[in-house]
Amino acid sequence: MGGDFGPSVTIPALARLRRQRPDIAYLLFGKAEEIEAELAAFPELAAICTIEHCDTAISMNDKPSIALRQGRKVSSMWRAVEALKEGRAQSCVSAGNTGALMAMAKIILRTLPGIERPAIAAVWPTVRGESVVLDVGATIGGSPAQYVQFAVMGAAYARTVFGMSKPTIGILNIGVEDIKGTDGVRDANDLLERSDLDYVGFIEGDGIGRGDADVVVTEGFTGNIALKTAEGTARQIATYLRQALTSSLISKLGYLLARGAFASLAERMDPNSANGGMFLGLNGAVVKSHGGADIAGFATAVEVAIEVAQADISAQIANDIDNMQSLLDDAWAETLD
Amino acid sequence: MGGDFGPSVTIPALARLRRQRPDIAYLLFGKAEEIEAELAAFPELAAICTIEHCDTAISMNDKPSIALRQGRKVSSMWRAVEALKEGRAQSCVSAGNTGALMAMAKIILRTLPGIERPAIAAVWPTVRGESVVLDVGATIGGSPAQYVQFAVMGAAYARTVFGMSKPTIGILNIGVEDIKGTDGVRDANDLLERSDLDYVGFIEGDGIGRGDADVVVTEGFTGNIALKTAEGTARQIATYLRQALTSSLISKLGYLLARGAFASLAERMDPNSANGGMFLGLNGAVVKSHGGADIAGFATAVEVAIEVAQADISAQIANDIDNMQSLLDDAWAETLD
Repeated sequence: MGGDFGPSVTIPALARLRRQRPDIAYLLFGKAEEIEAELAAFPELAAICTIEHCDTAISMNDKPSIALRQGRKVSSMWRAVEALKEGRAQSCVSAGNTGALMAMAKIILRTLPGIERPAIAAVWPTVRGESVVLDVGATIGGSPAQYVQFAVMGAAYARTVFGMSKPTIGILNIGVEDIKGTDGVRDANDLLERSDLDYVGFIEGDGIGRGDADVVVTEGFTGNIALKTAEGTARQIATYLRQALTSSLISKLGYLLARGAFASLAERMDPNSANGGMFLGLNGAVVKSHGGADIAGFATAVEVAIEVAQADISAQIANDIDNMQSLLDDAWAETLD
Repeated sequence: MGGDFGPSVTIPALARLRRQRPDIAYLLFGKAEEIEAELAAFPELAAICTIEHCDTAISMNDKPSIALRQGRKVSSMWRAVEALKEGRAQSCVSAGNTGALMAMAKIILRTLPGIERPAIAAVWPTVRGESVVLDVGATIGGSPAQYVQFAVMGAAYARTVFGMSKPTIGILNIGVEDIKGTDGVRDANDLLERSDLDYVGFIEGDGIGRGDADVVVTEGFTGNIALKTAEGTARQIATYLRQALTSSLISKLGYLLARGAFASLAERMDPNSANGGMFLGLNGAVVKSHGGADIAGFATAVEVAIEVAQADISAQIANDIDNMQSLLDDAWAETLD
């Protein structure tokens, strides 16, 4: 039970969810005494939790290689993911070290047939609603075929979590014309235009928040920087807003009158409200919560985990990739010409 | 005289600057009758302007190759850049087609000795003040040596335009640890640690707006997407803010009271207030204004052009690169080992 705050956040989050989702039970991996201490305040939650004590915890800053060396088999993170593989859990949520979680998830669960590399999908609030952006940090660089795999994975996520029947897909690029960008994105563009997906072409950085596509496909380096730049910009504007509204007595009074509106604005700008980066492309549902998520944020991540488990998103992805295999095979054969 | 609005924006912008900078005279390239029609309203400005009529204008959406084929020698854009080379102008501002301007500037002016590729530098408002981010779209990908060249160019810009004596430099990456990111950024990190520059290491996307470094170095694909993502996020939050503040009568009243504060917020969020992407690394000062810049925005771009011309930033860059040549030579030789 990791993250920056441990059971003091995760247990109250589960307590909050218990009433909404009485059908869900929890396996909790971590230091038993710490978990029990928090659970004492929530006896009804305690009744649906099974604690599996682990002495070893992965620290937030360990490199994945160190985490694997010290945490294989014995750490709470490893054992939580392993419970998925053993069929004892249907999905797994962690607020811990992202790199270590991805490494363990990939080693324990392995990628789905036809998926070369996993991706981390982030839910991105837009002026139209929500989009899913992937990859935001699992895989640096990417072949055109991987972009297609990410598109399939993102579309399955949008259908499952957003309930969209036919999500639109775009590739993140530095312009919308076919000639723009790297060879990788241009070749991926050609492939997706030949696919059955609802592909809308290239979109630019400012098109993500505008909602130009329901699924935004990119590789992990660019996607991670875009995501963190957007989070940083939101935080920066919140700082400006606070400074502006406390600059004079009149504006403070205005703030008091409009504070209901600001609360709703803060909620829409809050990264916690879209918490739950999903690891896609693996044989199992692993959801990564922000390390600094609060109770509401961690609860959102667990809700996402429940939704993807119930929709069996992995089976959908495996099926869709299978349907696209001939397109990918043809494209691969063309590279040999 | 291009951009989305032509002389109807650019001429009033120059008229506004005339009083602040009576020492500057202008060469104007474009359709003489259109320029003269706008200048008629500003006789004092007209007295310090020389119009050079050009029949050919580069359209905003032409590919650079088409723009070159049709506009070489004859277009207003080509001739404006050529005036720099001829020494008839000390800097050049355009609100036109960015790709075409970069292509013409590179062909006419050529890169400075020791600079492989030019960069577009963007001024990025931060909670601490302003930073410069480069490259934001001129050069896709980049060798470690190019990152060093961009760092030198960005530092010269920060000294010249921001007046900083010793600007700090960071490389944009997906984490701050040495092991993170692509081979390119890791090798660039090694090089910059061995340099005399005030290098602070890797910074993440959310570190740009926080002002973690005065100069943020990246390659053009990532930089362009980061810049446009930040612009899109700012616009998105402005939309949310408008919706929140008009959602009820009470919040509308609050808005009325705080409207002075909102005006100052809008100014800080306005891309026009930091308008003027500088092309760095060329034998001459070329500044690109946003195509959609308003009068204040275009005036800001011209002010930047005046500052960099007076500081002779190209000479500074050439000198600094010369001082770093042995470091770059050593690094290059090591790749042959």
